[in-house]
Amino acid sequence: MEGHFNEPWLDASAPHGEVVLSCRARLARNIAGFPFVNHATAAQRKELLRVARQVLLGGGLSSGMIWVDLGRATEHDRRLLVERHLISKNLADSDIDRAVAISGDESLSVMVNEEDHLRIQILAAGLQLESIHERLNEIDDHVEGKVDYAFSRRWGYLTACPTNVGTGIRFSVMMHLPALKITNEIDRVRRAAKDLHLAVRGYYGEGSESAGDFYQISNQVTLGRSEEELLGELKDKILPRIIEYEQQARRVLVERNETLLDDRTQRALGILRSARLLGAEEAMKLLSRVRLAIALGRLPEIDPRVVNQLFLQVQPAHLQFQAERPLSAEQLRVTRATIVRKAFA
Amino acid sequence: MEGHFNEPWLDASAPHGEVVLSCRARLARNIAGFPFVNHATAAQRKELLRVARQVLLGGGLSSGMIWVDLGRATEHDRRLLVERHLISKNLADSDIDRAVAISGDESLSVMVNEEDHLRIQILAAGLQLESIHERLNEIDDHVEGKVDYAFSRRWGYLTACPTNVGTGIRFSVMMHLPALKITNEIDRVRRAAKDLHLAVRGYYGEGSESAGDFYQISNQVTLGRSEEELLGELKDKILPRIIEYEQQARRVLVERNETLLDDRTQRALGILRSARLLGAEEAMKLLSRVRLAIALGRLPEIDPRVVNQLFLQVQPAHLQFQAERPLSAEQLRVTRATIVRKAFA
Repeated sequence: MEGHFNEPWLDASAPHGEVVLSCRARLARNIAGFPFVNHATAAQRKELLRVARQVLLGGGLSSGMIWVDLGRATEHDRRLLVERHLISKNLADSDIDRAVAISGDESLSVMVNEEDHLRIQILAAGLQLESIHERLNEIDDHVEGKVDYAFSRRWGYLTACPTNVGTGIRFSVMMHLPALKITNEIDRVRRAAKDLHLAVRGYYGEGSESAGDFYQISNQVTLGRSEEELLGELKDKILPRIIEYEQQARRVLVERNETLLDDRTQRALGILRSARLLGAEEAMKLLSRVRLAIALGRLPEIDPRVVNQLFLQVQPAHLQFQAERPLSAEQLRVTRATIVRKAFA
Repeated sequence: MEGHFNEPWLDASAPHGEVVLSCRARLARNIAGFPFVNHATAAQRKELLRVARQVLLGGGLSSGMIWVDLGRATEHDRRLLVERHLISKNLADSDIDRAVAISGDESLSVMVNEEDHLRIQILAAGLQLESIHERLNEIDDHVEGKVDYAFSRRWGYLTACPTNVGTGIRFSVMMHLPALKITNEIDRVRRAAKDLHLAVRGYYGEGSESAGDFYQISNQVTLGRSEEELLGELKDKILPRIIEYEQQARRVLVERNETLLDDRTQRALGILRSARLLGAEEAMKLLSRVRLAIALGRLPEIDPRVVNQLFLQVQPAHLQFQAERPLSAEQLRVTRATIVRKAFA
């Protein structure tokens, strides 16, 4: 792992950055001639890694591509990659031969031997679904120029899980919805999303809670829909509505009780600036309040990028990375508090 | 009411000031020839007020004595006097003719037409029972030189309530016991106090909760014991033991988990410095943590007197006094937060 990070996808001035932290598009692809990962032999999976590495690191994809052999990586490094949303928990916890190829700016990552042979992901700050979709298509074309994908005329791209068959694309958007949470309207969003066949997950994806009031919203169905249909619906209809709904809830918070809002904000900042012990969940909760206040123009002295980065930096593997040593649960809380205090000093 | 306050009894450098906020001695006295307050006619009570005023404001008692006619005082002024521990809640809420005489430095107050004709009280910072007892005796002698007390050779001084018959004296000590509260040992103190016929009350006396981890400890029985016996027992045996018990609990807190202690302290200070809305109970809880840390030498930059004063200043009537106008519940919380923020800025 490298000594420093690139986080272009934490740029706070990105489109709709006040509500949308980041967006992601990923393709599920399998290579013809190889069985699906869960049916392949160890030798076949090794061979697939070799082929994938050749294609992904062979140039022409993105600058500064690195290859991380996850079987050889330390547990700490795997956690770090999960926290940075570059690999899935499943891939980190798997015990088969597996790897990830990551671009220098961390906007592109390709997981190899996850559920599918290749999971190609593009990450960007704010709401930029169209441009990441374009870039994903370029990457996809590039890879397809070097290997044959498993494809059926009838079903489209073949994937290990039926929910990905078809276009094999999933768009997901990490939304910061603190006002809808405070006003108790978040459940309406959840219900509406469900009706629209969208999944609403937490900060770490599947099964995770909504730490820091982040909600990851993504399409679930890919079969029978064109990528353009999916994208258009999300980009032009659904997401603008959720963004507006959150913005409206924020206006209500300001109008209904400005002092209460400032009290919440200043207390959060006061604790972040003072605590000597800080848990991850509490840190994210407090950072969420600060992020909300910044978006409302109520904390002009604080750089939103600092807050966006802190959401990452307070995670355990990031803390250990920064401390350059393993940390006990208590040391994690001390280090987290120290980093946060310094950031807001 | 005057425009500013004297609070010599908040001097943090007083003996045992780190555990004992203040001490008080009070005498219950009735004047011969008048029925007890609850049996007196309105005319008799008025006459008693006249006599008492003559005696108490006639000079020779203490400098700068003032007389507050509580029937004419505003509700706000009565609350203020209760918050300053100069009159009892009972006297404030009573609807008969009643008054209080207060010395310029507020160390002496004499309630007239409370349960007894006269309730003479001396207040001092820290643990100074012997000197306040001496002073109380001087006041008592002075008053007795001008009026005849109701006295029985067999029972001693006669009082409206049997628990005060005898010497009629009550010593009480306002102790700050945050460490015993944190370590859950406060109940042992309560039980021990009960066995010793001591009452343990909250910050506002009878029936009040232990706001800010303050416990008011006082003797209950006065019959059949000399003042010297009562005083000696409290001063030499009981109180030093409670003080040592609290000090020991404080040492345990430091030894067991210094970081946790500092975290609690700094968070408390962080909130006090940041909140825009602050309730009285929360303010006292947070101030208590800061007071504990100061006593442990962990906040050398903060003046303990400021904290001692804030315990008073965050009370509703004090806030209204400072604001010079009636305040709604919300305005009280805003004003309290503002005053506290400024004090710690």
